[in-house]
Amino acid sequence: MPRSSTTKTNSQKTVHKYDAPDSLSSVGMTIPHHLVITDDTHPFHLESGATLPVVDVEYETYGELSEAKDNVILVCHALSGDAHVAGWDSTAQGRPERKWRLTHPGWWDSVIGPGKPIDTNRFFVVCANVLGSCYGTTGPSSINPATGKPYGLTFPIVTVGDWVVMEKMLLDHLGITRLYAVIGGSLGGQQALEWSLRYPRAIGKCIIMASGPRLSAQGLGFNAVARNAIMRDENFAAGDYYGKKKGPANGLAVARMLAHITYLSGKGMDFKFGRKRLLQDDPQQGFDAEFSVESYLNHQSKSFVERFDADSYLYITRAMDYYDAATAWGNGDLRKACSRLHAELMVVSFSSDWLYPPEEAREFVNAFLAENKPVTYVEIKSESGHDAFLVDTVPVGRLLRAYLLAPGINRRSGAIK
Amino acid sequence: MPRSSTTKTNSQKTVHKYDAPDSLSSVGMTIPHHLVITDDTHPFHLESGATLPVVDVEYETYGELSEAKDNVILVCHALSGDAHVAGWDSTAQGRPERKWRLTHPGWWDSVIGPGKPIDTNRFFVVCANVLGSCYGTTGPSSINPATGKPYGLTFPIVTVGDWVVMEKMLLDHLGITRLYAVIGGSLGGQQALEWSLRYPRAIGKCIIMASGPRLSAQGLGFNAVARNAIMRDENFAAGDYYGKKKGPANGLAVARMLAHITYLSGKGMDFKFGRKRLLQDDPQQGFDAEFSVESYLNHQSKSFVERFDADSYLYITRAMDYYDAATAWGNGDLRKACSRLHAELMVVSFSSDWLYPPEEAREFVNAFLAENKPVTYVEIKSESGHDAFLVDTVPVGRLLRAYLLAPGINRRSGAIK
Repeated sequence: MPRSSTTKTNSQKTVHKYDAPDSLSSVGMTIPHHLVITDDTHPFHLESGATLPVVDVEYETYGELSEAKDNVILVCHALSGDAHVAGWDSTAQGRPERKWRLTHPGWWDSVIGPGKPIDTNRFFVVCANVLGSCYGTTGPSSINPATGKPYGLTFPIVTVGDWVVMEKMLLDHLGITRLYAVIGGSLGGQQALEWSLRYPRAIGKCIIMASGPRLSAQGLGFNAVARNAIMRDENFAAGDYYGKKKGPANGLAVARMLAHITYLSGKGMDFKFGRKRLLQDDPQQGFDAEFSVESYLNHQSKSFVERFDADSYLYITRAMDYYDAATAWGNGDLRKACSRLHAELMVVSFSSDWLYPPEEAREFVNAFLAENKPVTYVEIKSESGHDAFLVDTVPVGRLLRAYLLAPGINRRSGAIK
Repeated sequence: MPRSSTTKTNSQKTVHKYDAPDSLSSVGMTIPHHLVITDDTHPFHLESGATLPVVDVEYETYGELSEAKDNVILVCHALSGDAHVAGWDSTAQGRPERKWRLTHPGWWDSVIGPGKPIDTNRFFVVCANVLGSCYGTTGPSSINPATGKPYGLTFPIVTVGDWVVMEKMLLDHLGITRLYAVIGGSLGGQQALEWSLRYPRAIGKCIIMASGPRLSAQGLGFNAVARNAIMRDENFAAGDYYGKKKGPANGLAVARMLAHITYLSGKGMDFKFGRKRLLQDDPQQGFDAEFSVESYLNHQSKSFVERFDADSYLYITRAMDYYDAATAWGNGDLRKACSRLHAELMVVSFSSDWLYPPEEAREFVNAFLAENKPVTYVEIKSESGHDAFLVDTVPVGRLLRAYLLAPGINRRSGAIK
């Protein structure tokens, strides 16, 4: 914790002085780890019924696992995320799809590290890249051992449940049987929820941000448009574009531009871009980017296309579509599904998030309350839209710190060392 | 008005019986008219500085022009609309791009006709297809007389202001100097506004629905994504795809899918589609349409691609982007622009419209109020989103009827015959 001291100056004014704490720093250079799950060890059965002969899991860890193994926090990433949550990737050099890591720390670096809200001086933090992704864990761009070629669309459909099972295998491998907490935003929040319903006794605290038990019809629609943009690209080649001169870069760019709009709020966009033009006095009167917002979306899509695989985008959005906690655990009854919860739960929504709006979060919370579950609900006022869990790190960090340190009502949440 | 009678049945239950009124019927079979504006008559100068040698305007009219020519209502269409507002197109047979008119009446048929809210027994209704469109008025798919080939992207940029000037030329041609009312929704609402600011003394009443003085950053963003989908299509051929084997049908389909989502509300989509599947018990676990909402969006885009030109989509969305009443008429000051209004104005917003939300409509209305302008504001509670002005025809029709018949506070609104 920051050291603070109070001193009196000559003018009798009280000055609070907070030293920059030594401990509030980065986790430093990071190394991605790998766990290879093969048929010989654990044949990996997917919810679809398919089996994968090899699952290579890329994951990172920060902090130290306590002797009692009771200080583990599992962080779950969202659609375009990866296992690199904090610090600086020591292996990014010379890997084009990880180039941006040379200039950017992990995606939640501002809340994870020594002295930070998810304090790596206390906690052992684990994050695994999800199955179907393109950041080290097996996915459609991986080589199918049966053919020696990338899977492409022969890769089986994966689900949020599959991701949680994979993470469970990883934790088993690390000798961890219980999580102090599981935390995630957006699609990561659905993983956190799934953890709490699938392995209810293995979780102390669960924190779900900007998420919910299922995607709305509007969200399904946006995902469908994104996939259509990719699959209707002439260079999609039925998903088998690997190694070819051109892939569905244009389709993926359009998908990402659209997604970006849904991550921001209307007011936030008006504040950030409004109707500002790149050249104030010389509108070009054509179809090139002329408004700042157009240029921003172009830029965002360009950098995304350099780092993300279009087939992975299909698989991960489909997993998001399919996730439905009520169907999976309550035969369609959300309250019944919620009755499985044993963890303490905090649900956080953001006032301007229209993908997972506060109204829906409240319904979700009410389903837990109706089952007398220990749920805390926080709505953060923000103009950052759905992205708020990633960018509003001051209020988000405060909440995380407070909730993680609060004495658990479940005794088994474990004491903090 | 519908005749109603109340009869008592034997069981003493009160039955309300509404006869179908004779007068509440269709305008019947319609014929599109054409006005050709050439260099010889009126060289057509666009706001961009370009000139068009020939402008062929397709328009329709319903009802009869009064001798005093004081019963004219100009209806302005939205992005994908046309001059065929009511009745049944007698010329649709054998024209693939108008095929849907064989099974569908005009786009606002439910509010325009004899005895209907915009009562063609009283009013002479005019609607012109906008410049840049693909429904009969000159646009990028028209032949450039200088080359003998379709304009494609050599067509000049057009603006809402150009559309209003074109409509003014049409009215001049018809000998009409004054509008009883001008009415439009969405992009048509921006035309109605532009009419009221450009020719303030020519308008009695102005009705603007689901619209505003400018597009938000979010709206600009969605338009940019739509245009990117079209322009990044491999078959776009820099807009010169006419007569070729393939055009940018996929890009246009993606653009339309996206637009459709923005026309509906989240709650409306949940109510209409929710997470319903095409095959309840057999999810196919792939990327084909599986949820009802996916199938709906696919279907909508398919029929749109058959009837709309991709280049026109670019030009018309760009006109929507550029429109900014405050800049055009108030040097950036909306209130100053609003001070030009002389018509009586009704602004109508819909509670679930997130493209032109009620908050923004209220700001817009306040700018008129601050200038002591006679403005009526109505917010209709609806789950139909932006599309409400087209689909919630019962409340919309009631408002139109009442506002059009209300005695004008501007004497020059003209008496109704």
